[in-house]
This record gives sequence, structure tokens and C-alpha cells, in this order.
Amino acid sequence: MTTTKLQTFIPLFYIVWSDDLLTEKEFVTLQGFIDSQDWLSPDEKQLLLSKISISNPPSRQDIADWKSKIEQTIQQNPAIKSIFEIAVALSEKDASIQKLETSFVKLENDLGILGEEAISNFKTKAKTFTVTHQTEASFDIQKITDVLDGNQAPIINKVKSIISGPEFKLETITNVEAYRQKVYDWCKILAKENLGNMAYPKQYGGGENPSDYFAIMETLSYHDLSLVIKFGVQFGLWGTSVMSLGTEKHYIKYLKGIGTLKIPGCFAMTETHHGSNVKGLETTATYNRENQTFTIHTPHEKAQKEYIGNAALHGQMATVFAKLIIAGHDYGVNAFIVPLRDENGTVLKGITIGDCGHKMGLNGVDNGTIRFDNVNIPKENMLDRFASVNDKGEFESPIPSDNRRFFTMLGTLVGGRIGIPRSALAAAKTGLTIAIKYSDQRKQFGPEEGSEVPILNYRMHQRRLLIPLAKTYAVHFALQYLTKRFLNKTEAEMQEIEALAAGLKSYSTWSTTAILQECREACGGKGYLSENRIDALKNDTEIYTTFEGDNTVLMQLVAKNRLSEFRKSFGEMGSFGIINYVYENAKSAVAQKNPIAIRKTDEVHLLDSEFHLQAFEHREKTILASAAKRIKKLIDSGMDAYDAFNVVQHQMIDMAQAYLERVVLEQFQMAIASVEDKNSRTILTKLCQLYALSQIEKNKAWYLEDNYMEAIKTKAIRTIVNQLCWDIRPDAVALVNAFAIPDSCLGELV
Amino acid sequence: MTTTKLQTFIPLFYIVWSDDLLTEKEFVTLQGFIDSQDWLSPDEKQLLLSKISISNPPSRQDIADWKSKIEQTIQQNPAIKSIFEIAVALSEKDASIQKLETSFVKLENDLGILGEEAISNFKTKAKTFTVTHQTEASFDIQKITDVLDGNQAPIINKVKSIISGPEFKLETITNVEAYRQKVYDWCKILAKENLGNMAYPKQYGGGENPSDYFAIMETLSYHDLSLVIKFGVQFGLWGTSVMSLGTEKHYIKYLKGIGTLKIPGCFAMTETHHGSNVKGLETTATYNRENQTFTIHTPHEKAQKEYIGNAALHGQMATVFAKLIIAGHDYGVNAFIVPLRDENGTVLKGITIGDCGHKMGLNGVDNGTIRFDNVNIPKENMLDRFASVNDKGEFESPIPSDNRRFFTMLGTLVGGRIGIPRSALAAAKTGLTIAIKYSDQRKQFGPEEGSEVPILNYRMHQRRLLIPLAKTYAVHFALQYLTKRFLNKTEAEMQEIEALAAGLKSYSTWSTTAILQECREACGGKGYLSENRIDALKNDTEIYTTFEGDNTVLMQLVAKNRLSEFRKSFGEMGSFGIINYVYENAKSAVAQKNPIAIRKTDEVHLLDSEFHLQAFEHREKTILASAAKRIKKLIDSGMDAYDAFNVVQHQMIDMAQAYLERVVLEQFQMAIASVEDKNSRTILTKLCQLYALSQIEKNKAWYLEDNYMEAIKTKAIRTIVNQLCWDIRPDAVALVNAFAIPDSCLGELV
Repeated sequence: MTTTKLQTFIPLFYIVWSDDLLTEKEFVTLQGFIDSQDWLSPDEKQLLLSKISISNPPSRQDIADWKSKIEQTIQQNPAIKSIFEIAVALSEKDASIQKLETSFVKLENDLGILGEEAISNFKTKAKTFTVTHQTEASFDIQKITDVLDGNQAPIINKVKSIISGPEFKLETITNVEAYRQKVYDWCKILAKENLGNMAYPKQYGGGENPSDYFAIMETLSYHDLSLVIKFGVQFGLWGTSVMSLGTEKHYIKYLKGIGTLKIPGCFAMTETHHGSNVKGLETTATYNRENQTFTIHTPHEKAQKEYIGNAALHGQMATVFAKLIIAGHDYGVNAFIVPLRDENGTVLKGITIGDCGHKMGLNGVDNGTIRFDNVNIPKENMLDRFASVNDKGEFESPIPSDNRRFFTMLGTLVGGRIGIPRSALAAAKTGLTIAIKYSDQRKQFGPEEGSEVPILNYRMHQRRLLIPLAKTYAVHFALQYLTKRFLNKTEAEMQEIEALAAGLKSYSTWSTTAILQECREACGGKGYLSENRIDALKNDTEIYTTFEGDNTVLMQLVAKNRLSEFRKSFGEMGSFGIINYVYENAKSAVAQKNPIAIRKTDEVHLLDSEFHLQAFEHREKTILASAAKRIKKLIDSGMDAYDAFNVVQHQMIDMAQAYLERVVLEQFQMAIASVEDKNSRTILTKLCQLYALSQIEKNKAWYLEDNYMEAIKTKAIRTIVNQLCWDIRPDAVALVNAFAIPDSCLGELV
Repeated sequence: MTTTKLQTFIPLFYIVWSDDLLTEKEFVTLQGFIDSQDWLSPDEKQLLLSKISISNPPSRQDIADWKSKIEQTIQQNPAIKSIFEIAVALSEKDASIQKLETSFVKLENDLGILGEEAISNFKTKAKTFTVTHQTEASFDIQKITDVLDGNQAPIINKVKSIISGPEFKLETITNVEAYRQKVYDWCKILAKENLGNMAYPKQYGGGENPSDYFAIMETLSYHDLSLVIKFGVQFGLWGTSVMSLGTEKHYIKYLKGIGTLKIPGCFAMTETHHGSNVKGLETTATYNRENQTFTIHTPHEKAQKEYIGNAALHGQMATVFAKLIIAGHDYGVNAFIVPLRDENGTVLKGITIGDCGHKMGLNGVDNGTIRFDNVNIPKENMLDRFASVNDKGEFESPIPSDNRRFFTMLGTLVGGRIGIPRSALAAAKTGLTIAIKYSDQRKQFGPEEGSEVPILNYRMHQRRLLIPLAKTYAVHFALQYLTKRFLNKTEAEMQEIEALAAGLKSYSTWSTTAILQECREACGGKGYLSENRIDALKNDTEIYTTFEGDNTVLMQLVAKNRLSEFRKSFGEMGSFGIINYVYENAKSAVAQKNPIAIRKTDEVHLLDSEFHLQAFEHREKTILASAAKRIKKLIDSGMDAYDAFNVVQHQMIDMAQAYLERVVLEQFQMAIASVEDKNSRTILTKLCQLYALSQIEKNKAWYLEDNYMEAIKTKAIRTIVNQLCWDIRPDAVALVNAFAIPDSCLGELV
């Protein structure tokens, strides 16, 4: 390659030998090209062909020389934009070469080389914008923490300080016995700190502060989740069942002992054959008029109580849900306190305990099965707030319908459906803190000869972690709202709040499951090591989507509630009513669905919070009306109602989802409106925009089907979601730092 | 309520007292209504109002009486369609009542009662079609098993019989030491059965049957996955690295010992700081000319080998990937055999082993870290198929480019990217077998007074399990195809096959992760108990999306390959070329995108396999062309190529996804075409339709944006997906039985 003319081929030679994507076929193409060039002498052809013989490749040194020649050329001629321009420069602007542009470019194309890209690769140095993007907080972290913690800051800080102590050091305990004991010991410490009885009335030793109780549950969830569940079983489920279903005599007798963990107990509702459908429980409580007792009995193996926390080892008593039978008559499911063990832990006569054994997670909780073989308990052990047996041995209740009584009882236990989603939220925060901080440090790949790039600078990685981050902030405010509504509820609001709790329980726990999955993958192999905590977070919360009500079942409950509310608001439910509604909705949607709006893609509009909320509301209302219409049509056509609801089940879930998304967005927007600090408001607004637009992006098929948006708009939304991720990335580490999770809970990675 | 006139109110009274969705507000509404009825006397009003006083509810007996009256009425007048008609009938067709229809209906609506639904609930009995749907196979199970197993049936059956034996009894072993020992012992049994060396040449003791080797990996994966990975590390990674990167002297010295497990070994590639970006490995192998040895060295802590299977306990040797340094010059990453332990298991001088400790799963595999402190190995230990040091101490290689040499080396190890997705496939099959069989047995909820319904009859549950079932069948045939392509590859096809393997590895492992998530939730609490196996399946396969290449990184590799192929096929890559391509594509899409086709919703069309494949192909081609155009535009506008690829990363993943989906569908369709048995073909066709349409449904936003379909069509597809699930449900149990997974691998649930 001594003559300048022949140097023309250097770029192509370099590329075919170094690119890992070219195959033998491309060598043949290149050989054919050289053969066909009339301006080369046979000797020159032979020389050139010798450089691209697969059986006799050039030396490593040849390749290095070619590369440095190309680099020099580009350096000397920074305006160069194509492979051919390099070739021309290397030929020292040989005029005969310059004429060959067309055939050279065709050759490049036949070889699948994108010239501009190849040149750019030669030029790329460390300073590309992908490389230089980095962590730089735009706000005061403490101020965001203050917004998140609100009035609960003191109790949150107290709990954080306890779980950061040496006694609470986290470790992976694979021995189930040791793990259960450790968790039990931790619970005792928390009881001593008066955290367990926080929600109970002061006259029974409690703190009378249910707000703080929920904050405790959430904050503890940064730590070991077996602890949280054991804690929740004892003080939440067991204690609350006595408090909500019992009467004063029970409070006096039990509540203090429960709050101090002197009386460890269980909440024995679920049976092997009846989990979601608790109305179908088969355990019986038969009233014995002769001696004023009840006999608690498990009629067959599949009617045993199952998955009962605290049952396998520690529980001394249980609130047992059983069908009350008086004189052969079934009065529906009621609740009874049944002793299981004496104070030494010995299982009492008639009680058979099984151990659920090893589980996917939560192995620090002693879940067990309980069978009752004609166990007698005194009459006073019936939790008799909503139903009782009078002195004459007759059933009495202020609520005559068995159905409604049962749901009223369940309604008082709805607190569990607030504690669990808040615990799930904390687990998502922990996972995101670990994954985002790791991704900010971890570098992998980079431009040629540049340094490697933090993986959080990669766009897919940003989508995988920052959209969840925005959602986690959104869910935080929604759960704050739910808690407030629940704690200040009136009777008239109860059904709405119960549905909201059921819905947000599903929304938050599913969200956590999905987010921890992303976190695990985002941390690669490190995410798989137990020491880095994602293992435990993921496996422990896995059951959150099932317990306290299977999410899919709960979502149908939400949907049914929405349908009922819908019917109430729209009087005439005949098809006229729905038409009316659709018309009303259509009127309000005129502004939104006009030909200009559905194609509007300017940034101001796309980032506008009013646009977001309108889009969410429109979706919510339209799905609701359409499902109502469809159900009516199916039933009118003669289909059984039970079948009809099954046919539209998919739509019911969508309906509940749309409702929850609207609530979550609305609450996020309202929370931001009350933030005073400007920088805090700016970053929270960005997160809220990302939440809103990423949800619209997820649902864009629906918006397109509904003609609420045209393709040009949904595509613009995708672009802006990516851009928001990019813009938020420098703040990402500060945003997870604002969760202020104790370092001791973040594993070994960060 | 003695007068017939007053009986008019019975249905409303019954509903307000029994429905759990009505609140105090509705009572007020009803009270107001009664008050306003002129035709009632003050006494009558008082009587009626007394029945709806919240402070003084009717007796339980009252409610029961009302209910039975309503039921009698409906029984006697089966044509009744509204609440008001019941009221009229109860009033014995009092003419004055009949006139009140409008106001009564308005009241019902104000109360949010859907009359038709309420009536239907009264009528609903056990025999609704949701209740009666049940398992009933439409085909011969063995015939489907034969289709799945093909020529590998004998080896598959052999492996099944081994893992069903008493020595292979599955149990949850929480003690890591005991678990590792158990897995090691199992491996020894498999080695004795000549399963490990199945792929090695006969002259070195092997079975020379790589087809069978992959079938072994897949079938073993019904059993413990730690065993599969330990097996794969020893016989696949360690053995194959010697076979593919070494030369005859290595085969003679090591291959037999590896195949018999006499020489347990490791594949030491990944380092703490370099996992995906293996080109950046930092371990060095420095050539010592004076004594013809190499010095293997770990320059700093983060350059240690990490996650190395077999390292923590059992490995005696390792193939170590390290940068070859000769006379201060770096010749890129090469492979060397380095002894780690002597035959007694004592770690050798200069080697430091760490233990990765407890992991989310695969705790039967002893993953560890390895550090080398100036460890000397003889020159012959370099695996010298692609590069060597000659007698003069000079570097020699048939592949001059370091880049290409390295990728050629990696290319020979692509078998791992076939074994892993096939293992993932088996795990998905196991999970689906457990979840579908359980869901066929498990009953929960049902119509009033009817029996409870198998949860597999619920539409959402069907979507959650049967769409994955269809996908699992689809992936099965795609992996069969990949295996065949790989085993019969020519050099020219290698890049395509490597990309396909990388892509299907991602597709299959992500699919398994998602499917096992659904299986866990579908089994509720039972799915959380370790004895039911979903725990292990889920946690063990969790890392499959990371090892053998992080899925997101692999998907980008696939996309780059597609882009390169695309450029080669379209010569002129100038914008003219793309326009040409788009035009060509548009021409062929004319038939598909005409105004009639995009709205076509008849069932024959929607179920047509040609329509499916065209839709998949159109998506694949369009995304590819659009991404290529976008990258070119960004680079032309002056953006660095590295940044440009980052900007379009999301689209790159979509592109790879669309390509893979097309391959999977195509192979499924082709596999069905060669099935002879009619019933087998019918059910497989249904599954293939479900796969195709559920993927189109998943991607429907794209089809709408592209105007390939209009909303009417995408909505029709949703309906038909639901219908296909319903139609396949009776065959679901038979379809998982056709996987023929040993009972001993299915846990305690089924």
C-alpha cells in the first residue's frame, strides 16, 4: 500500500477486518469489487487482494497502522463526513479517485457500512453527552423528606433510630427456627417501646394514635419484612379484631396484654378451602344452651385454618372466624376468642397445630394451620359487637342481614388494607434506593477510547428505574390520602373508603412487585446476592398481592363499587341514562377531543397538569359507562348475571385500574400544590408529569381506540417520557436519598 | 305488610337491607319516597317506615320471609324482568300500583339498583355456563407429547426416569452446605450415566450428540435448577471452553476427566467490574519469555472473578479469561487453564477464593470469587485455537483484529445461550402445570346457592394462565428451531444464529420470569409455600435474565445485527434507500392497509394464520426501517453515534422484540404444518392463534399508531382473545399433561 492510490482502500480494509458484524460473504463482495476496477493494474489488484485473503490475513500491526492513518486523516480534516472522503484524503486527493465516488458508496452500502456512523466512531471521545451526564441535585433533600414525612416525622425518626441500632442488625438467617426467634425478640423490643399498642385507646395502655401506628408499619418496612408482618399480625390483626369486633369486657381483659405482647395471638380467618371467599368458611361455633358455651369445630381437613401467622409457635390465643350455629340454625360467620396454648406454650387439648413450613419469603413468621376438635369456650368469648347470643339462647344483632353484618365486620378490619400497601411502598422505596444508587456508580461500556458510562445514563435503564421512582412518589401521596380518609371517616363514606383501600392495596402491592423485579434486573448479578437485600424485599413482599385479599378479587370489588356509585349518580339507569351520561361526558370532552386537541403535541400542553388529569378522568368515566352498558346488554339478552360479570371481568379490572390511576394522580397534584419550597415543587412536578405521561403511554392503545388522541400525540408522549427521564436522572440519587432510609437497611451495595 | 298493596315494597326493602353496597343515604332516599306517596295513608306510611329504620331494623326472620316471597313470585312468573314487575305481582296486580311504574323505576335508579341484575341473582342457580365449564380433552395427550419430544424422546425419557428415582427426591434444603453437597452428588450420578459428556467427541469418551445434550439440560430443568446450573457449569461452560477454545493437546489431557467429573472446573470470565462488557476484563496473563510461562494476576480487587460457579467449593481448575500481555503489549482477552485446587480440594498458592454466600436462588451452586496473585502456569495452558504465542515469544493468530478474535471466541460459546432458554422453558412448563392443574381443582365463589366455581373458569384467570400457556408452546418450537440451526450452522450463518440465540435467550427467560409470576399469584397462598415448588422455580430462574448476558444488552446486540442485515439488503443506505424500502414495504402493505382490511373484524380473517404472520412481519420491518432512519438522521445532524444509539435505545429493544416475535410465530406455524394427527393440529392451531392474537393485542398501540388497524379491529381482537381462552380452557389440563413432567417434580399441590 505504498502508493497513495492504493491507500484509498485502507478504510474499507480496516473496517472489514475489525468489524465483528461482517462475514465471509462481504469479503467476497469486496474481492469482486477490486477485481472489477479497470483503473487498477493486475499487480495492484493482486496486492490489494492479498490484504483481504481470509486464509492469510494481514498482521495485527497492519491493522493498527491502518487505524492510526485513518485517525490522523480525520484529525487533519475534521469536516470529513464519509468513508469515501477519508479514502480521497488518503489518496492525497487523487483526481482519478475522486471520480469513483458512486461506485465506492455503493460498495459501502453493499457491505452494510453506515459511513457516518463509522466516522463518528472514529471521532467519538470521552466527552459525549451520554458520558458526561451525572448526579447533581437541584433541590434541598431534607425539604423533600419533610414533605414526605409530614406530621409523622417524630415517630418515623424514632422508629428509624431503633431499627438502626446494633440489636436490629440485618443478616440473612437461613435457619427458620433461629429466624423466627430473632423476629419474635425484635417484636418484644418494639412492644417495650410502646410501638405495638400505638393505635389502642389510652385507657388500655395504648397511644391512641392510629396515624402514628401506620407510620410505624411503613417505617419498620425498611427493615426486615418478617418483623413487619409478625408485628402486624400481633398488634394489627389480632389486637384490632378484639378492638373492632369485641366489646368493653374484651378490651379490659385482653387489650393491654396484647399491646405488651404478653398475650401473643392470631387472626384465624382463612381456611384451606376458603381464602378469598370468606363467606364460605366452614369452621363451626355451635352454641350449647345447656351450659352457655360454644363448641368450635373443624368439620373436615380442608376446613382447617391455614397460613395463620403466630400459629405455628407463639400464639396463645386466636380470633377464630366460624359459622355460628344455634339450635341447628346457621347464623353466618362470627368471631370468637379461642385459647390455643397455655402460658408455657403447650398446645391445649382439642387444638392441632401444623407448621406451614418453608415459604418463598417471610420465614421469620411462624405461619401454621389450626384444627379444632370440639373445643369448648365460654359464651363471653364471642366477640359480640355486631352479633350476640342473648340469655335466652337467641341470636341478636343490630344488623339483620347476615350478608351485611358480615361485610360490616370485615369493614372494621380494613386497616390491614392500609398497613400492607404502606409496607409495600416502603419496600419499593428501599429497592429503588439500592438500584438507583448502584446504577449511578456502576459503569459498563462506553464510547471507543472513552471512559465507561454509569448505567443510569442509558435510556432503557432510566425508563426501568425512573418511571417506577415517579410512581412510588405518586403512590406515597395516595396512601397518605387514604390513611387520612380512613382515620376521619363517616359512616356514609365507609363503602367508598373500603373500596379505595382495597384498590390502593392492589395498586401499591402490584406496583411493588413490578418495581422490585426491575430493581433486581437493574442490579444484575449483585441484585441476586442476598446480602444486597433485593432478594428479601422481593420474596417477602411477593405474598402482599395475595394476603389481605387477592388483588384480582379486590379489584373486582372496587369495580362493583364504582358501578354501584355510577348507577346512583345517574338515576335513570335505563339505556337512556347511559346515553345521557355519555352525552354529558361527550360535551365535557368536546374541548378535549376536537381535531386540534387530539393532535396537539407542543410541550407546554403535554406537560400541563390539567391535560393529564382530564385525560385520566375521561378514561375512568368512559370505561365505567361502557362496562355498565355492556353488562346491562348481556343481562337484557338473557345471560345470567353471574356469567355476565365473568364475561366482562377483564373490563372490570380496567375500570378499577383507571379509577385508581385517577385518584393517585389527583392526590399527587394536590400534594404538590401545597408544597411551599420552590425547588421542591419543581422536582416533584417533574415526577408528577413523568407519572402522568408514563401512565398515558402505558394506556395509549385505549386513548387511540377512543380517538382521544391521535398517533402523532401518543408518539410525542413517548418522546417526552424519555426526555423527562433524562432530565430527572441527575436528581435521581437525591430523590431516593430523600426517602432517608437508614443505611443499615440498604445492604452491601451502596 | 299484610295488605297486598304494601307488599309492593317487599323487593325494595329486601334489597336495601341485604345489599352490602347501600348506605345510610339510600335509606333516606327510600324514606323520602314513601313519605311522598299520596296513595298511602299516614298509618300505612308509618308501618312502612318502621321497616326501614336503621335504629330498629327488621328481624332476621322478616328478611328471610321477604326473600322467600320474592323467590316464589319469580318462580311463578318466570317472565318477570324487573323489580317493579315483582312488586306488581306481589300486590296481586293491583291496578293502582301498576300506574306507579315510572316513579318506582326512578326510585330503583336513585338507589343504584340494576333491576335486571337483581332479578337474575334471584334466578341464578348452579347451572350457569360459568359453573358448568370443565376439563375435557379434545385430543390424545401422548400425540402432543410426541410432537414436543420429537427425536429426543428416548433421552428425554431416560432423564425423566433418573430424576423420578428415589435418590433424586426433591426437598427444600435451607442449609447451604448440605444443599451444595446434595447437588454435587446428583451431578456425579448424572456423570456416571454419561449424560454430562453427551456433547463431547466419542474419542474423548463423549456421546458426540449435542442435540441430546440440550434435551438433557431441558429435561433436567423439571427437577432442581441448582443441579441444572451446576451441571451446565461443569459440562457446558468448563468443558465447552476447553473443547472450543483449546486444541488437541487440551482435549487429550482434560476432556475425559471433565466428562466424568474427575476434574471439576470453572468458567472464570466475569469480573466484579466487568460483567456485560467482557472486552474490558482486567485480569492479566503476562508472558514470561525466559521460562515460557504465563503469570495470571488480578490487578485490583474489582478485577477479581465473581459469581463463578464451582469456584467456592469444588472446582479444581478454571478457564480464566485474561488480557494477554507480551513484552508490555496488550493483545486482548484470551483464555487460559489455571489450576485452583489440588485433588484433595486444597486451594493452591496464589489463589484466593471467596464465597458469594447466600443468593436469591440456586443455593445448591457454589458460586465464588477468585483472585490471582501472580500465579504461574505453563505455556501449554493457553487455550490456543484462535491465538497463541510462538516459540519466538511472538503473538500469532489467524484472526488479526483483536475485536473480531474476541467475538469469534465468544461465538463458540453460544451453546450456553441455547441451554439457558431451554432450561427456562422447562421451568415455565413446570410452573404452568402446577398452576393450571391447581386452578382446575381450586374452587372459590360461585352464583348464589350454586356450587363454587373452579377458578380456571374465571376470565381473568384464563388470561393470566392460558396466554402464557400458548406462549410457552410457541417458545418451545422456536427453541427447537434455534437448536437445529445452531447444530447445522455454516460460517456464513453464524452471526445471524448468534443474534437469534441472544434474542431467544432474552425472550424465553423474560417470558419465564413473567409466567412464573402469574403462576405464583394464580396459586395464591399455596403458591407461596416452598413445598409447592413455584418458590424455587421462580427464584432459581430469576438470574437467567442476567447471566449468559444481560437481556437488555443482548437485545441491543440483536437490534444491531438486524440493522446491519437491513443495511446489507438495501444497498443504497442513503435516505433514498430507506425511502425505497418503505415504498416496497408500503406496496406489499397495500393489501393489508387498505380501508377495508384495517377494519376487517370477521372471525375467519382474525383467526387466519396468514393475517397473523403478515401483521408480525409488517411490524418487524417498519420498526427496523424507522429506527435505521432515525439513527441516520441523528448522526447526520451532528450527534455522536454513541449518543444517537442511546437516544433510540428504547426503539432498538422494540425492534429486537418484533423480530423475535415474528420468528417465534413463524416457527410455531411451520411446526403445526408438519403435524399429521388432526386433533393435535386443531388444538395446536388454537394455541398458535392465541399466541398471535395476544401478541397483537399487547402491541395494539403500535398497530393503531401505524394505522395498520383501526380501533374496531383491535377491539374485536380483544374479544376473540378472551373467547380463545374460554375455548381452550377445557383442554388446558391436557395441554400441560402433554409436557409429561414427572409427578415428583410438581410439588404437593397436584
